Amino acid sequence: MKSWIEIPENSDFSIYNIPFGIGSDSGAPYVCTRIGDQVINLYKLAQTGFFRGLVEDVEVFNHPALNPFIGQGKSVTNEVRLRIQETLSNDNSPLRHQRELFSPWRMVTMHLPIVIGDYTDFYSSIEHATNVGKMFRDPENALLPNWRHLPIGYHGRASSIVISGTPVRRPNGQTKPKDSDQPIFGPTQRLDFELEMGFVIGKETKLGDPISTTDAEDHIFGLVLFNDWSARDIQQWEYVPLGPFLAKNFASGIAPWIVTLEALEPYKVHGPEQHPAVLPYLQCTGLKNYDIELEVVLTPDNSEPAVISNSNFRYMYWNMCQQLAHHTSNGCNVRVGDLMASGTISGPDRDSLGSMLEMSEGGKSPVSLPNGQKRSFIEDGDTITLRGWAENNGHRVGFGEVYNTIEPA
Amino acid sequence: MKSWIEIPENSDFSIYNIPFGIGSDSGAPYVCTRIGDQVINLYKLAQTGFFRGLVEDVEVFNHPALNPFIGQGKSVTNEVRLRIQETLSNDNSPLRHQRELFSPWRMVTMHLPIVIGDYTDFYSSIEHATNVGKMFRDPENALLPNWRHLPIGYHGRASSIVISGTPVRRPNGQTKPKDSDQPIFGPTQRLDFELEMGFVIGKETKLGDPISTTDAEDHIFGLVLFNDWSARDIQQWEYVPLGPFLAKNFASGIAPWIVTLEALEPYKVHGPEQHPAVLPYLQCTGLKNYDIELEVVLTPDNSEPAVISNSNFRYMYWNMCQQLAHHTSNGCNVRVGDLMASGTISGPDRDSLGSMLEMSEGGKSPVSLPNGQKRSFIEDGDTITLRGWAENNGHRVGFGEVYNTIEPA
Repeated sequence: MKSWIEIPENSDFSIYNIPFGIGSDSGAPYVCTRIGDQVINLYKLAQTGFFRGLVEDVEVFNHPALNPFIGQGKSVTNEVRLRIQETLSNDNSPLRHQRELFSPWRMVTMHLPIVIGDYTDFYSSIEHATNVGKMFRDPENALLPNWRHLPIGYHGRASSIVISGTPVRRPNGQTKPKDSDQPIFGPTQRLDFELEMGFVIGKETKLGDPISTTDAEDHIFGLVLFNDWSARDIQQWEYVPLGPFLAKNFASGIAPWIVTLEALEPYKVHGPEQHPAVLPYLQCTGLKNYDIELEVVLTPDNSEPAVISNSNFRYMYWNMCQQLAHHTSNGCNVRVGDLMASGTISGPDRDSLGSMLEMSEGGKSPVSLPNGQKRSFIEDGDTITLRGWAENNGHRVGFGEVYNTIEPA
Repeated sequence: MKSWIEIPENSDFSIYNIPFGIGSDSGAPYVCTRIGDQVINLYKLAQTGFFRGLVEDVEVFNHPALNPFIGQGKSVTNEVRLRIQETLSNDNSPLRHQRELFSPWRMVTMHLPIVIGDYTDFYSSIEHATNVGKMFRDPENALLPNWRHLPIGYHGRASSIVISGTPVRRPNGQTKPKDSDQPIFGPTQRLDFELEMGFVIGKETKLGDPISTTDAEDHIFGLVLFNDWSARDIQQWEYVPLGPFLAKNFASGIAPWIVTLEALEPYKVHGPEQHPAVLPYLQCTGLKNYDIELEVVLTPDNSEPAVISNSNFRYMYWNMCQQLAHHTSNGCNVRVGDLMASGTISGPDRDSLGSMLEMSEGGKSPVSLPNGQKRSFIEDGDTITLRGWAENNGHRVGFGEVYNTIEPA
């Protein structure tokens, strides 16, 4: 498959991708997709009758969030994606003469792609859970007894999820320094990122109705890059017994493009073997992990970007189908636009860790940057950029990036 | 102040209350209030021009949630309440001749009063935290070191908050029986309620902007009864290290009426003294607790109701202003309609406990009911009803009730 649109080599937005997002230029936000360096206004496209017979109400594309579009269901959204793909790879496409549908991506402002009803964060990388357990708790028993039996998760804050590019202010908070009897209040000294992937719910359930691992994919619209900003000193002091709260809810970054599960089908792989065997409601068959390369880039203020980690989504011990089956096993209902994130995605090696906490071993081994600086945690003026892409047989499906720059407290 | 409406003795809905909710009869849901046994349709009332000069757009009353009304701000909502109160206590009110505005409360279906963007649950009763700490952790160190320094809280699930009267299905879940090496999956054996009050955010903030304890009341629209249904066996197994998740998110019950902070002004009292002194950002002056009597009623299937607890909101160690100041101290933003709940409200005595876990001492001392039955936890067919009211000088401002009946798994 080849498009008549010029697509730069190594573009995340090949003809095989066709992700969805919300963009705007001079007017109201609209549903859009991207191919190569071009953003396509799907509302304008819909108004030409392009989706006739498929989408009854073109106004679903004239909306500041993807929820109404996603809510049409996969029978519609998959066909929309395929119809776009088909016309972009058809040399006789009438779109070649409709340049008003296209804008260079740098001219388009991207917005939060979804209204997020509830946001859940899992803790599903065994490497990350082990590394953090060693530092926060007992090095000899890093993994708690429940960890291999269920995908641990917790609820997070939806209001403070911000679109890529939004500056993040260093949070104040209560911490208890090691050398002090009393807690103090002030700017976090241990600001951190977390390399994560999120998945977006595409099909709601009723309260009381669980989703099986078999049905889970039918409820997942797509995936998106996610940075779960964290303040480790606040977290260490507050997290017992009810979990992370202010250490996380000051901001989380989300990328503008949601890549459909269908676009990622060619990149499915086996996940790690699970020992001991999981309970029947968490068992699943077939390929449920995804080979998605992930990259963390730290750019100090006025300096060159430095790749500080290369991880992969395939490392996840618990896959998304298990996460969703577990989340709903008690009858908890999900709604279109709910976001569920993986938790930090760390790999087995020192250069595949998904947080500064792990890279610097809790600050004991600062990371050296090419400009000569060192980092134990994230400093004011630093920008963290997460990127992700899947690639095989010369085809690439990528996620773009999510970046935030840290402002002083 | 006396109303020309007949108000039954001990009604929660005196002329001093004027709460807000969402009701419907044959048509679309509307904003309403209640006085005595009568519900007043505020949309119909607004259409008569009653709120002229105060509410520009009467359509805020023609909405399935209170959010647009609350979003008008206290300068409007307080005046709306006072104008209703004035006309209901004015013998020459034209409303005496507009019976079409009134419906007997039993004829009105009440709905979830707000669209809840984010739901946070605190853990602010020192008696409850101590009782639970003894059972879940170390009896010698029941209160964790951070507890007296900050109002511990965590994010909960908004999607599964249901209006009073909605049946709640006993959740399935993963638990690890004491006598077993392996976890099992099945219906919870330790279903519990939690007696709580929630407060509703009435004024949004921008990400990065904290709310001081002094400004907090300006951001609180009102209070509502809340039952944070819990599955203790699921909780015990899953909650380390990231807090309660499936043990809570299968359902929470909310009452239909939000009582404004202004209606509760006469019932303000001092809270417990806080030792050690809290950090400056958590200090506040003046009366910040509320003397609200609380009652838990257990009604077994086909049996008589039994009052099993009498507690009081005044027992809260951490008050709402401190909770909100802490929640936003890191810049976390709040939105109109966000719900923040107190955590279980237990008092100092055996008959003022806010959960079965505490009443039955983790199942060791079952509670005897008047019908001869005993309860360690909640059984199928049981109904739990929470009630609350403030009363002094012969004036009563009450919250109605929230009840849910348990269906089998």
